[in-house]
Amino acid sequence: MRLADTGELSLLQRIRERFRVNAKDLIAGIGDDSAIIVPRDYPLLLTTDMMAEGVHFDLAFTTYFQLGFKIVSVNVSDIYAMGGAPRFVLLDVAAPGSTDEEMLESFFEGVRKAMGRYRLALIGGDLSSSKALSISATLVGYARKPVTRSGARPGDRIYVTGNLGDSACGLELLKAIKKPIHIERGDRTNRPLGWETMRPLLTRHLLPEARRPGKISGVATAMIDVSDGLLIDLWRLCDESRVGARIHMMQLPISSQMKKAAYFLNLEPELLATAGGEDYEILFTASPKRRVAGAHCIGEITDSERTVVERDGTKRSFSPEGYQHWR
Amino acid sequence: MRLADTGELSLLQRIRERFRVNAKDLIAGIGDDSAIIVPRDYPLLLTTDMMAEGVHFDLAFTTYFQLGFKIVSVNVSDIYAMGGAPRFVLLDVAAPGSTDEEMLESFFEGVRKAMGRYRLALIGGDLSSSKALSISATLVGYARKPVTRSGARPGDRIYVTGNLGDSACGLELLKAIKKPIHIERGDRTNRPLGWETMRPLLTRHLLPEARRPGKISGVATAMIDVSDGLLIDLWRLCDESRVGARIHMMQLPISSQMKKAAYFLNLEPELLATAGGEDYEILFTASPKRRVAGAHCIGEITDSERTVVERDGTKRSFSPEGYQHWR
Repeated sequence: MRLADTGELSLLQRIRERFRVNAKDLIAGIGDDSAIIVPRDYPLLLTTDMMAEGVHFDLAFTTYFQLGFKIVSVNVSDIYAMGGAPRFVLLDVAAPGSTDEEMLESFFEGVRKAMGRYRLALIGGDLSSSKALSISATLVGYARKPVTRSGARPGDRIYVTGNLGDSACGLELLKAIKKPIHIERGDRTNRPLGWETMRPLLTRHLLPEARRPGKISGVATAMIDVSDGLLIDLWRLCDESRVGARIHMMQLPISSQMKKAAYFLNLEPELLATAGGEDYEILFTASPKRRVAGAHCIGEITDSERTVVERDGTKRSFSPEGYQHWR
Repeated sequence: MRLADTGELSLLQRIRERFRVNAKDLIAGIGDDSAIIVPRDYPLLLTTDMMAEGVHFDLAFTTYFQLGFKIVSVNVSDIYAMGGAPRFVLLDVAAPGSTDEEMLESFFEGVRKAMGRYRLALIGGDLSSSKALSISATLVGYARKPVTRSGARPGDRIYVTGNLGDSACGLELLKAIKKPIHIERGDRTNRPLGWETMRPLLTRHLLPEARRPGKISGVATAMIDVSDGLLIDLWRLCDESRVGARIHMMQLPISSQMKKAAYFLNLEPELLATAGGEDYEILFTASPKRRVAGAHCIGEITDSERTVVERDGTKRSFSPEGYQHWR
């Protein structure tokens, strides 16, 4: 059944039943003009991110389930990057009338899977028709002590919580594979490379899990999530903190699978790692006196110079390289 | 300059400067991964609504300023419909790279105009490229005592705060005019009808102001805003309250301008008033014992029958007529 055959009301009804939730801090969720919450006595975090067909995703090699999972993860990542705990989500979905209803159900299954992972409650949203699929989510979270982008000081070490470039490399692989892989159902493929090489890269791109900073929030002087690319996001952190940064290419965490796939695809691993984007790792700074566990040190904060130290020891200035819309 | 020539960063920077705000309950707005608020000790309302090109608006006869104003108003209307005071807004904008930057500036001027009207602070958002223009806003508001859709009781009177069908009639006029009218700059036209007839109808459609219920919140047993059409939204209120409703066509507030324009366009005023949508008036119920000022009584809540009483006294059952996406 296409959406055009069933309409908005019946879909709304099913979503509402499926996402029903009881919680102390929630008075009313889906089903009224607004949701009503009675927040706990903490600062509240609010963030929103959207994904548009043909820009953020290509339905030729992305499943609806994956889209649902990802729109939640990318927003949760922004809450985690403030040291917060995500709590509520609102979801806007605009889809063409020709969309199969089953596809949209599968999208909401992906949303539900992610919500379970992050323990979220869906409290509102908007369903609408459109020419191209476009999805937007707003996340609400709590943070006892939010960590902003602006607290980095010269001398602080720069860290990242996990491998860089896996997601961007996964996207390049998908462009070669040219069809959706339902990883969520156990589907796999051995072309163009072995599944064990491709699995972590495709998974990181299609079903990214936001990185929960945990104890890192307690030691970080500044945090940001790597969504558009290491260098552009580091640039943003530096701007907000009014400092510079020196990054050592040698120290970037790059997975063996990414190296292998990049070599096969004739791409530079270091370019994918520094400007690929969609890593959803946490980039943060901490005093050199603090012990930091579970993260890779990749450089240090400077007064103002912003440089990359190449593997051969040469230095170059960097600019905000990475994903910029409309460029 | 097209967006493709300037990119996201420079636009973001300008928006941030223009929308800078200081407030007690706001710790950090635009410029970090999430906004941080410390809400006052009231229940918090959250709502989101989106508008997609070719579905909610046609750039052939809508200005970017009007879109900016409207996306804020339609969301504020959902906060007002709960008896709340709107406070913060987050905004997602996805626009094609071919969009003129001046147009997007004008969009943000419209947003700013509406924000001033409702005393809102812009605290976050997302800018992205897309195939078609798509806009989504999330509103956060406060409500001491939120009024839901579910409190209507048999015997309650049904009220609406203002004229119905003006907006839908304005849209039909625009389809005949086939070009944008910059009402915000004082532009006018005398075709196909005199400006004095068209002005309120076009304004209601292009620059709708959300209806603040004021004292009505104190007497209402249930409230909803009329966004998709009187009958479909009344149907929703009845569903939530588990009651029926009887509406008297004779009592519907219909403006003389709307009647005149509908007659000219060969449309039925009563159809526009009951199923036209985008009225952004508040539909509410109140006990017959309560004095209600500033609203039109249009019927009464019943146990379960849902009927319309025509002008000639005949009764007919009604169904959720109005705008449904994908149908």
